[in-house]
Amino acid sequence: MSSTLPSAVSSVNAIRLALRSWPEVDDYLNHCKGVILPLGSTEQHGPTGAIGTDALTAEALALEVGRRTGVLVTPTQAFGMAEHHLGFAGTMSLKPATLLALIHDLVISLANHGFERIFVINGHGGNVATTKAAFAQAYSSAISNDLPVASKLRCKLANWFMAGSVFHAARELYGDQEGQHATPSEIALTLHIEPSLLSKQRPLPEPAPAGPIHGPEDFRRRHPDGRMGSNPYLAKPEHGASLLETAATALSEDLTSFLTAA
Amino acid sequence: MSSTLPSAVSSVNAIRLALRSWPEVDDYLNHCKGVILPLGSTEQHGPTGAIGTDALTAEALALEVGRRTGVLVTPTQAFGMAEHHLGFAGTMSLKPATLLALIHDLVISLANHGFERIFVINGHGGNVATTKAAFAQAYSSAISNDLPVASKLRCKLANWFMAGSVFHAARELYGDQEGQHATPSEIALTLHIEPSLLSKQRPLPEPAPAGPIHGPEDFRRRHPDGRMGSNPYLAKPEHGASLLETAATALSEDLTSFLTAA
Amino acid sequence: MSSTLPSAVSSVNAIRLALRSWPEVDDYLNHCKGVILPLGSTEQHGPTGAIGTDALTAEALALEVGRRTGVLVTPTQAFGMAEHHLGFAGTMSLKPATLLALIHDLVISLANHGFERIFVINGHGGNVATTKAAFAQAYSSAISNDLPVASKLRCKLANWFMAGSVFHAARELYGDQEGQHATPSEIALTLHIEPSLLSKQRPLPEPAPAGPIHGPEDFRRRHPDGRMGSNPYLAKPEHGASLLETAATALSEDLTSFLTAA
Amino acid sequence: MSSTLPSAVSSVNAIRLALRSWPEVDDYLNHCKGVILPLGSTEQHGPTGAIGTDALTAEALALEVGRRTGVLVTPTQAFGMAEHHLGFAGTMSLKPATLLALIHDLVISLANHGFERIFVINGHGGNVATTKAAFAQAYSSAISNDLPVASKLRCKLANWFMAGSVFHAARELYGDQEGQHATPSEIALTLHIEPSLLSKQRPLPEPAPAGPIHGPEDFRRRHPDGRMGSNPYLAKPEHGASLLETAATALSEDLTSFLTAA
Amino acid sequence: MSSTLPSAVSSVNAIRLALRSWPEVDDYLNHCKGVILPLGSTEQHGPTGAIGTDALTAEALALEVGRRTGVLVTPTQAFGMAEHHLGFAGTMSLKPATLLALIHDLVISLANHGFERIFVINGHGGNVATTKAAFAQAYSSAISNDLPVASKLRCKLANWFMAGSVFHAARELYGDQEGQHATPSEIALTLHIEPSLLSKQRPLPEPAPAGPIHGPEDFRRRHPDGRMGSNPYLAKPEHGASLLETAATALSEDLTSFLTAA
Amino acid sequence: MSSTLPSAVSSVNAIRLALRSWPEVDDYLNHCKGVILPLGSTEQHGPTGAIGTDALTAEALALEVGRRTGVLVTPTQAFGMAEHHLGFAGTMSLKPATLLALIHDLVISLANHGFERIFVINGHGGNVATTKAAFAQAYSSAISNDLPVASKLRCKLANWFMAGSVFHAARELYGDQEGQHATPSEIALTLHIEPSLLSKQRPLPEPAPAGPIHGPEDFRRRHPDGRMGSNPYLAKPEHGASLLETAATALSEDLTSFLTAA
Repeated sequence: MSSTLPSAVSSVNAIRLALRSWPEVDDYLNHCKGVILPLGSTEQHGPTGAIGTDALTAEALALEVGRRTGVLVTPTQAFGMAEHHLGFAGTMSLKPATLLALIHDLVISLANHGFERIFVINGHGGNVATTKAAFAQAYSSAISNDLPVASKLRCKLANWFMAGSVFHAARELYGDQEGQHATPSEIALTLHIEPSLLSKQRPLPEPAPAGPIHGPEDFRRRHPDGRMGSNPYLAKPEHGASLLETAATALSEDLTSFLTAA
Repeated sequence: MSSTLPSAVSSVNAIRLALRSWPEVDDYLNHCKGVILPLGSTEQHGPTGAIGTDALTAEALALEVGRRTGVLVTPTQAFGMAEHHLGFAGTMSLKPATLLALIHDLVISLANHGFERIFVINGHGGNVATTKAAFAQAYSSAISNDLPVASKLRCKLANWFMAGSVFHAARELYGDQEGQHATPSEIALTLHIEPSLLSKQRPLPEPAPAGPIHGPEDFRRRHPDGRMGSNPYLAKPEHGASLLETAATALSEDLTSFLTAA
Repeated sequence: MSSTLPSAVSSVNAIRLALRSWPEVDDYLNHCKGVILPLGSTEQHGPTGAIGTDALTAEALALEVGRRTGVLVTPTQAFGMAEHHLGFAGTMSLKPATLLALIHDLVISLANHGFERIFVINGHGGNVATTKAAFAQAYSSAISNDLPVASKLRCKLANWFMAGSVFHAARELYGDQEGQHATPSEIALTLHIEPSLLSKQRPLPEPAPAGPIHGPEDFRRRHPDGRMGSNPYLAKPEHGASLLETAATALSEDLTSFLTAA
Repeated sequence: MSSTLPSAVSSVNAIRLALRSWPEVDDYLNHCKGVILPLGSTEQHGPTGAIGTDALTAEALALEVGRRTGVLVTPTQAFGMAEHHLGFAGTMSLKPATLLALIHDLVISLANHGFERIFVINGHGGNVATTKAAFAQAYSSAISNDLPVASKLRCKLANWFMAGSVFHAARELYGDQEGQHATPSEIALTLHIEPSLLSKQRPLPEPAPAGPIHGPEDFRRRHPDGRMGSNPYLAKPEHGASLLETAATALSEDLTSFLTAA
Repeated sequence: MSSTLPSAVSSVNAIRLALRSWPEVDDYLNHCKGVILPLGSTEQHGPTGAIGTDALTAEALALEVGRRTGVLVTPTQAFGMAEHHLGFAGTMSLKPATLLALIHDLVISLANHGFERIFVINGHGGNVATTKAAFAQAYSSAISNDLPVASKLRCKLANWFMAGSVFHAARELYGDQEGQHATPSEIALTLHIEPSLLSKQRPLPEPAPAGPIHGPEDFRRRHPDGRMGSNPYLAKPEHGASLLETAATALSEDLTSFLTAA
Repeated sequence: MSSTLPSAVSSVNAIRLALRSWPEVDDYLNHCKGVILPLGSTEQHGPTGAIGTDALTAEALALEVGRRTGVLVTPTQAFGMAEHHLGFAGTMSLKPATLLALIHDLVISLANHGFERIFVINGHGGNVATTKAAFAQAYSSAISNDLPVASKLRCKLANWFMAGSVFHAARELYGDQEGQHATPSEIALTLHIEPSLLSKQRPLPEPAPAGPIHGPEDFRRRHPDGRMGSNPYLAKPEHGASLLETAATALSEDLTSFLTAA
């Protein structure tokens, strides 16, 4: 996936659920009940950022965390809750009620097989609320459906961009120009993951300031080019490599605690 | 409502939507498009706390903020998302999907009349995720229903217990014994609002430590008496009066900014 | 709550679920499996009536019935199904599908704890249909969720304004001017509960006649000031005190039969 | 359909929507905006009654009322809300939320074409609540979908067995043995509509008394053979013919008023 | 029902669930776990075809298949998924999500009683997708509701017009003029079932060609009179009798295999 | 992506929506209103097949079709309707109602931006029914939401494995051993896309025969190792390359017709 992860090709494949067979998953469950689910969004990321930013970053991090910990990584759910970005072409959004049902169904599917710890690595702030609501709904269904793991099921939402060390690193690199949407830190990750995106980088005018998020028309009016206080032109691929490293370290520790907690 | 608010009786009534007639609301809308919606929960609050704590506090704060700002206060939604507390008798919970629909419908009702700024004063952490998801769903419906206010509609969630000054005051009063559920600060508010609750106060053994929240069976196992790291015995009615004052000041400023923001 | 109920303060508090702790509810369930849930609405009540009329009356009655019978009273659900009143400012309505889910979830929450008899004291005709539908849905879920009380669970809807003795008293007081919405009897109750409402009372022109209820635009066209054949100016606080007494007597008998029925 | 309606064959066909082409419906809408929707249920009707009783009777009445008034009759919705009868083999029930959506969709379909008055002839008490809830939801959707007829749309639920003259006739024929479910009056209608059902008639033991309706297990325990206080053995085909006549007269008047009301 | 089925009157009645009592269904379940559910649609069928075509044909076939095999036939669900026909007056459609819930509820009702093989005889292509989706949802609920038959429950969708022999016969009779909607074969069935429909038959201009189906406006634009490449004027009642025979033979074999399959 | 597509790296990136910015999508919409949405599933594919087979193949085909036609390709929806495979570890399934809502929301998002032709390239038979149902629901919402493209919106489901030429090629390669699930043709595609999967290939015993699909328990009983009549050991990477070519040719023609059709 990246030159900073020399042994990745084989190892990454080893932890991708998509590349496993069902008997291999059965075996896996004999020694580990944890699983990582990457959750992104498909939404505008400013005039130069990739629409797939949040899924690209969540997936890259999930695979790297999986590689380090040996925990299985499911396919990425690339569509999330991005209603407020619908004023910009290319944004594809699930309504909150739909995303709630989706996360619920995925958690219940995994719980059915005996997975007890679901670790969602999320790349988009707009997913946070609905995903947490979905966890509560899933705990409730696990009980009413009488699943054997009902009393042991735990879900955790890990937003890579909110890890303390990532936050700190981003501030150090970009200061106030980090902003809140289409941030240089997330763009840097995408430049590292997908070098072809470098060709889009160009200086941009002063962004509209960050502010509260309401509906799509309000959002577009306040943030005419989609950015919230950010200067994504500052992003460099090498920042991305380093931020990925920082975030993967933080999330791996987080996951390890989650899996071993009583 | 309380001796600290001498002029409350008449003033509080003046801003209770429940006590207004529809022509009065029509008049109100000519000069103000804002409204306060108190949101609570009906759930266990430890062995000595009132099950209605979150609704009592949200309502008291909403009325006080309304009294100070002149902004209308709707009736309190006393039932929220409390699935994880269902292991304790008396807890009444709405599933996340239900609360999402409820908040959506209330926001859309208000938007129909021309209200443009909905300020939800919330007393329960478990409501946060679902309420935010509901706001996104409501913005979307306002557009697909072609409501005249669609592009101006804004909702804001104000959790009184998370205001900086409240947090600070609670730490000062209770230090680490504030905990995370059935906290002395919220219990103090209820003692101030409803003095009869004082009779329940008694010293309690060391609480189970706060931790992550999963399903109801997991919650009860980890927190056998319902508390999360809190010592509610420290709560005093006079703390409640002071915390109410602090919170009302913070929320009133917050509301004023919200109403006047471009 | 009122001078006609001298011992109310302490007694009323004793039966408010909101003021109980969970161990107290556990104790309660050892000797009684019944509970009262007050259900109101937040909707226009004519040019002089309070928007909160239906919740104010349902709550007052629930507390009085609870006080007399010792049966626990949950917080009031103040928002109900009032779609047809949405043409008047201030009305806040849940769609039928939402109210159905809400009542369902509350009943299932209570049934989870072992409550077997749910007595809903309702203040609004528009809630009747949806609440009954919700009961049927809840019985069904109690079985598919395998709740221990499934085969014993019973819900009952008690509309205070439809009790025979109340109906009779209202006719005696107001004759044909009772009407069907914003009636003098319900307004009288609110004047008794909340004396400040007296200031709104004034003579009104002949009301539009009562008739069938369809959508909000049709309703407003037929009933331009919101009243349906009623003359709320006839309402007096002392009528309210007496009607509350009459209704509480009827509902208390009703509840007693419900709790003791085989 | 029956010997008492000699001219029925051709006339009945003329008002069956199922036998019309779409241009004929277009023509019809030029002079009439009303339509009849028969709603039944498929549920146990005691040890000798037909499971299809409620749909058979609703359909027969709808066709007869259509024949007399010239108002179009849609196909019969034969499945309704019968959750409480699920303890008896053969009962097929829609959950309340499903029936709500179904009636909503049918009303909206008709409103789309310009129908303004939807007259639901219902054969089952268990459908009443949910159908009324569905009407409210449909009025709301008609507005949010911007249907041209939104402000004119009206729905009416006509329960044939609750018409005053029918009630009176049934009491006269059967007195207290009419009961509340699997009543001789509805069984008589089915014997008239479908003479082969006569072969099932036989004397039955004293029925369980009528009472409140809760869940399916409670219902079966209280009413072991499915009857509620009724003696369907009293039913005769000629009663059915006469009751059909009585009910059709009442409903036709009701429909005529509904169509011509301002 | 028709002259080609001389013994039909009594036999058909014997297999109509609507004409059975619950104890008779109990008896039936002792020797057979199969049941037939006819599913139609209420939608335009070209300028001369009956709106009820799909329900009339599904019902006629279901009864004939029931008569031949002795398998119980439930009432017909006359409303299906016909959103694309809503541009033509008289069409009544359930949204896919509603039909999904409906079929789910009916299957679960039957499974509750111990029916293990549900054979849906369908008259409308537009129902296929949603009905199959509903089966999957029902299998899932049967497990989460812990129904005793969960592991044995099987549903099968039988579209009479897609049986090989029917397809062949229709091609032989009508060649390319069979088309895809308002086909002469389905119209022929209705002429046989309901001779009064013959009066509508008349030569029609060249139809719009069949093509893909999208939304209602697109459909009406492409197919201005509702037909898709068909010449229903070719239909004769005697074709209908013969096609009914052919289809009933095919479906009866299909059902027999379904009931006896391991 | 593969050696048969030498110019793929840059070209494929050019048509990935995930790698575009919103202004680029705006530009794109000026000359093309079409878009490709790959839809997979995450489910068991026999003892040696990859759980991600259906998403891997749908994505590879979508990108190749996009590369050839220049039509934008959205991210892959990797989770579909796989309820019947839930008896095998690792399967993650959305309930039909959830997938219906998801596809609906994605189509509506795209239609909001002005996309008129949505081409879903699907890798899983179990998605077919629900996806078609979702299209119908989306057409309906496009109208009720008053989207400008409502009358022009068209969706098409393209199942690569059902293209005539693919079917033919698979039969030629594998004859009867193609089977119906975990087929050598789909496995061959995955071996071509992800060579590391070759290591899983091994001879397998005679598979259980293909048959009808019901619930998960029934499926596992009938198909103990997950295969339906297939011999995936026959699959070779070079077959995959060739099948991908064949399928991409068929789907590209299909897409071209779809985009240019009147």
